Amino acid sequence: MTEATSRSLEGKTCLVLGAGGFIGWNLIQRLRSDGAAIIALDIRPALEDCPADVEWVEAGLNDRDVLADLVKRADTVFHLAASSTPASANADPAGDVENSVLPALGLLDMLTESSARLVFVSSGGTVYGPEVQVPTPESAQTDPINAYGVGKLAIEKYIAIDRRQRGLDAIVLRVANPYGPHQNPMRGQGAIAAFLYRALNGEPIEIWGTGEVIRDYVYIGDVAAALSAAASYDGSHALFNVGGGGGLSLNDIIGKIEPLFSQPIRVERKPGRVLDVPASILDISRASEHLKWRPVVDINTGLGLTLDWLRERFGPAS
Amino acid sequence: MTEATSRSLEGKTCLVLGAGGFIGWNLIQRLRSDGAAIIALDIRPALEDCPADVEWVEAGLNDRDVLADLVKRADTVFHLAASSTPASANADPAGDVENSVLPALGLLDMLTESSARLVFVSSGGTVYGPEVQVPTPESAQTDPINAYGVGKLAIEKYIAIDRRQRGLDAIVLRVANPYGPHQNPMRGQGAIAAFLYRALNGEPIEIWGTGEVIRDYVYIGDVAAALSAAASYDGSHALFNVGGGGGLSLNDIIGKIEPLFSQPIRVERKPGRVLDVPASILDISRASEHLKWRPVVDINTGLGLTLDWLRERFGPAS
Repeated sequence: MTEATSRSLEGKTCLVLGAGGFIGWNLIQRLRSDGAAIIALDIRPALEDCPADVEWVEAGLNDRDVLADLVKRADTVFHLAASSTPASANADPAGDVENSVLPALGLLDMLTESSARLVFVSSGGTVYGPEVQVPTPESAQTDPINAYGVGKLAIEKYIAIDRRQRGLDAIVLRVANPYGPHQNPMRGQGAIAAFLYRALNGEPIEIWGTGEVIRDYVYIGDVAAALSAAASYDGSHALFNVGGGGGLSLNDIIGKIEPLFSQPIRVERKPGRVLDVPASILDISRASEHLKWRPVVDINTGLGLTLDWLRERFGPAS
Repeated sequence: MTEATSRSLEGKTCLVLGAGGFIGWNLIQRLRSDGAAIIALDIRPALEDCPADVEWVEAGLNDRDVLADLVKRADTVFHLAASSTPASANADPAGDVENSVLPALGLLDMLTESSARLVFVSSGGTVYGPEVQVPTPESAQTDPINAYGVGKLAIEKYIAIDRRQRGLDAIVLRVANPYGPHQNPMRGQGAIAAFLYRALNGEPIEIWGTGEVIRDYVYIGDVAAALSAAASYDGSHALFNVGGGGGLSLNDIIGKIEPLFSQPIRVERKPGRVLDVPASILDISRASEHLKWRPVVDINTGLGLTLDWLRERFGPAS
């Protein structure tokens, strides 16, 4: 990452939608170091450790007037807001459509009246089909594995139409499985956070199935760097995979977590879920070539940083 | 079409959603000749020429209790209901999501509690991208050219998930541009109906652009036959293109319409729309091989049948 690139958001106004979430918190740190002015929007109140120079607006994507005013002030809009998780979207696809797809359409209308760039975080782990090549390039078939992925894909497609027909400036990042500090280990997303939390508190780690399911984990600081790079990219691509560059099985992760603890960690194995795709790894060569981005935090370093944060926030009172 | 295939719906109960529309009317004729019992659902009152043995239910997809009861009685559910046209969906994508995507999700929930087969009519003219190969196979990239196509594609993807995860029995047909009797020439869909209507009434035919844009026209009777074939198909494919097997430009159509009239027809040419894809033709080899279906009504015959119907319904009082 050259100095020119890393400072290219200097003086720009970045609007972060869903700023109170895992990616949001980390993106804010990154954008501040990039020199950007930040407006953070979230339905939650300002994070307690939110820097004072961040303008926090407690509102949602359905607060149309508030949002429209903020969009007008922004050079870049990062859309990370997600009212659903994969689990909640799959349990209630219609709710996901109402709470994710419809608000995104409202945002697109506002954006076509501005010159701001949209950076949209899609789901690299769910939009591709169960039968694609691995590692999976952006050109692979999109047969989402669940309703969460269909919602993300639909938003991607609406964005693509507005790019072609209304001149919208937009980049879509299909992000793999991010992990790292500020991922809530109790939210049911993120095996790494959940495993570390359980090990930290002396609880058994639950593995569903053989543990050989392979996923693409990417450190959140690297994801934030990719989002920043997308904001200042000025080529013709509009879609990039963002992943860790490889895959790890749950058993691999257990093996890497064990040495971080002095006491042995317990693992409970349970019957496998049939819905799992055996291996999901993104091909990140396009982002590497065109965004000049690649993940730089290796898994051992990332696990250590994540454990440090979890210990401080959620560790046993020792 | 062998006798065995054409009668394979004998005694089956077919529920036709959106029965009062262009495809619906023609499908009902076909299903009756197949020997099926028919329940027709539409928000409109029963068609005046609706056969007496068709059970007509005046209701919409949002009348959940009514619909759920009908689904329970059906062996096959044909979902043709479309509250939006490409034009209305593009003007109001959120409205299309609310009125097309959400009701379809409700229907899917009902279907997974039954053993009925779903046959869903998707849009062969809009779900593929502007840059796909022509003729276009089912495996081509889906980058819908407009919001109407995104809505259809999202429904397709939800169907695919329910097939994999909930055992839904479903076939999706991506239908090209159907034309023929019972297509309303005033609804803004269907160049052939609009052209014939104008010529019939001595009005000029409007051509936007060069008239060299190529589309895939398929006679409605052939579409109805494909829907019927999909209902009784028992292979593993779940997605078929349904088209005319070739393409025609608007100028080609003008050339074929002219000889049908004794007086010369007038053509007014206007500046072109930039949104048009130059050529859209579906590859129908999968349907040909596996559904044992292919279009049998050639364009000249189809134009004549369409003109006969239009003359009777909309022609000048002469």
